[in-house]
Amino acid sequence: MDVTALVRAKAQAARNAAAILALCPTKTKNDALAQMARALEEKTAALIEANRADLDRARTAGHPRAFLDRLTLTETRVEQMASQLREVAALPDPVGDVVDAWRRPNGLEIARVRVPLGVIGFIYESRPNVTADAAALCFKSGNAVLLRGGSEAIESNTMIAALLAKAAEKAGGPADAIQFIDTTDRAAVAAMLELDGLLDLVIPRGGEDFVRWVAERSRVPVLKHDKGLVHVYVDAAADAEMAAAIVVNAKAQRPSVCNALETLLVHEAAAPRLLPMIAARLVDAGVALRGCPKTRALVPGAAPASDADWDEEYLDLVLAVKVVPDLGSAIAHIRAHGTGLAEAIVTNDLAAARRFTREVDAAAVLVNASTRLVDGNQFGLGAEMGISTSRVHARGPVGVRELTTTKFVVHGDGQVRE
Amino acid sequence: MDVTALVRAKAQAARNAAAILALCPTKTKNDALAQMARALEEKTAALIEANRADLDRARTAGHPRAFLDRLTLTETRVEQMASQLREVAALPDPVGDVVDAWRRPNGLEIARVRVPLGVIGFIYESRPNVTADAAALCFKSGNAVLLRGGSEAIESNTMIAALLAKAAEKAGGPADAIQFIDTTDRAAVAAMLELDGLLDLVIPRGGEDFVRWVAERSRVPVLKHDKGLVHVYVDAAADAEMAAAIVVNAKAQRPSVCNALETLLVHEAAAPRLLPMIAARLVDAGVALRGCPKTRALVPGAAPASDADWDEEYLDLVLAVKVVPDLGSAIAHIRAHGTGLAEAIVTNDLAAARRFTREVDAAAVLVNASTRLVDGNQFGLGAEMGISTSRVHARGPVGVRELTTTKFVVHGDGQVRE
Repeated sequence: MDVTALVRAKAQAARNAAAILALCPTKTKNDALAQMARALEEKTAALIEANRADLDRARTAGHPRAFLDRLTLTETRVEQMASQLREVAALPDPVGDVVDAWRRPNGLEIARVRVPLGVIGFIYESRPNVTADAAALCFKSGNAVLLRGGSEAIESNTMIAALLAKAAEKAGGPADAIQFIDTTDRAAVAAMLELDGLLDLVIPRGGEDFVRWVAERSRVPVLKHDKGLVHVYVDAAADAEMAAAIVVNAKAQRPSVCNALETLLVHEAAAPRLLPMIAARLVDAGVALRGCPKTRALVPGAAPASDADWDEEYLDLVLAVKVVPDLGSAIAHIRAHGTGLAEAIVTNDLAAARRFTREVDAAAVLVNASTRLVDGNQFGLGAEMGISTSRVHARGPVGVRELTTTKFVVHGDGQVRE
Repeated sequence: MDVTALVRAKAQAARNAAAILALCPTKTKNDALAQMARALEEKTAALIEANRADLDRARTAGHPRAFLDRLTLTETRVEQMASQLREVAALPDPVGDVVDAWRRPNGLEIARVRVPLGVIGFIYESRPNVTADAAALCFKSGNAVLLRGGSEAIESNTMIAALLAKAAEKAGGPADAIQFIDTTDRAAVAAMLELDGLLDLVIPRGGEDFVRWVAERSRVPVLKHDKGLVHVYVDAAADAEMAAAIVVNAKAQRPSVCNALETLLVHEAAAPRLLPMIAARLVDAGVALRGCPKTRALVPGAAPASDADWDEEYLDLVLAVKVVPDLGSAIAHIRAHGTGLAEAIVTNDLAAARRFTREVDAAAVLVNASTRLVDGNQFGLGAEMGISTSRVHARGPVGVRELTTTKFVVHGDGQVRE
């Protein structure tokens, strides 16, 4: 079977299963998720064995140590995957939720009710736990899923997906609701994007160029998870300790992710008081600084920033720093260079906070909190498929609720249109 | 200027205006809408004059009388446009609505707040009032709009859009928020679909093939408004009078629109009791029937239906009629042939109603009410841009709320990620 036919066959199987899964009671779905967790635990040794094959290939291919670490499955990590599945089981079921309901003057009763989207196509990178997370979120929200993982984790992912599908069936759910594309052929992704009759949504995760490529060519609606050029603006009225703690956390706690800080903006009235101290804390945390001339006057150790630095997503222990004349300039800089993921202000000035939250347009705008908190779990929404930088359908962390749509359910007593 | 450059320039102007309009207070927007209504009223004579040029061209081109009627502006119709603008002004402003808000254990306060989508591209047919409706809905929801109307109404639409933009400015709003593509060059539509950096959403209204063409080639997210293959299922437990009233209303009250009935399904236990009576009422209303063999046994005047009839959107006084053995068969028929717009059951059996609303997947599922009620105004949502048959973002009538997205606004006291 060629890869296009393979992908289509799996999508069709998912579509058929979706109609069944959409009507599954919450209990069946939760039982299935519990079965999935048990299945992963019981097959820990086999999973680690399959993972070893992936690791051997990755090592031979010369991938760096950090990559190999992310790819590795251990007993602890399998246990974490299982417990994540149980957490998804514990989430409220969004399906059937009445979003709102009202009665019309003619007696018509109208309710807007949550239903699954249908079939989700999910394209993601190499960490094998993402396979389990994504399958669980889709299953819980009543959606079938067509998974396309990174080729480096093919053995691990194939086994995880097979175990989950079998466990779903054991609990009385449709096994075909979890489909994994078990080929590394890159044509599979292009084939997915043509399936506008079978897939309802595609969620691509990966580099900026890849996500743009998907968005440009897909005939299926796309929920983007892409670049995060994240700013923290330290206002004139910022508390020094709070500013330092937030900036260091946003930059250094995990620099490789999309909600990590990339550009620090500092009000020039506060710069002499705050910038040397914040810079010292950043350097202690291993961060290399690239500053504008005013920054370098206060922080001589900073390298000079070029214009390109204001548009650079380092995803590393590097930070661009700019001194701005006022709040309006900070907002203008963010509007020109931000990617609309997460933007924060540190201030004790209420008017500044209100203006910042109103005028800055991003999936999340924060006052006095680290941008690293922009995350489904941190927000209390449960696990997430990613953080959407799309404006339509869902914006910000994508959890089970964002994997649903609604239908209007209307009850009458014979009402007609006059 | 070539058409691509023209469309891009208008989209860029709209984008700049969108940033201003997004922050406009509700009062400014409502004042602008009131100004727009007054402007149309004051220029009634000039509008009718411009419309005459469109009508002359349309008559020369040999368009049918119904088409000319839809295209025509009269004093009454201008007055209706103005009063529709005032109704949009009276709608609640969705921008700034707090959709939900909660506090995390660490004290973080999270709110999901409605904000405008940005710039909407709207592609529509010939009735000039649609220009005013769409501009008003976008303006009220804080969105700039790039309008592309049917070429037959170019003179009328150009003048309407210009009057509205000027009125917006008079009230202190950005005139550039209302952009009209004043060329009939068809390349303009293709050019719009390339503007993924400038437009946030495209809403195409028109024939099935056109909407599919837009959805397939657009790099901008699309909210489809397309085919409605609408069913009414008359259950065994249906009230005779109610069934007849709903079926006749759904088919004949305005057969040319997407929520009009196309296929009638009747439970075979009820068919002898109900079908001859309903058929007689339909024939009285001018409806031509095409029936399955069981239908024709009960309604000898019905023409035979072919398999193609179950997939035909007549948009005319023609109705396909099928007798089905049970509720499950009706649901299966709808699943196979429906387009997910509106589906109705007529029954007094509670279990049947519950199963139908649960298992039928459509933008709107109705019990004992006419499918013609699936409409923004009838639902109490105010005017609509169309009825979305997309599953993502918005499904069903698209009003001001559906033209928004959300952002998370997060307040803390120095919270960081552990």
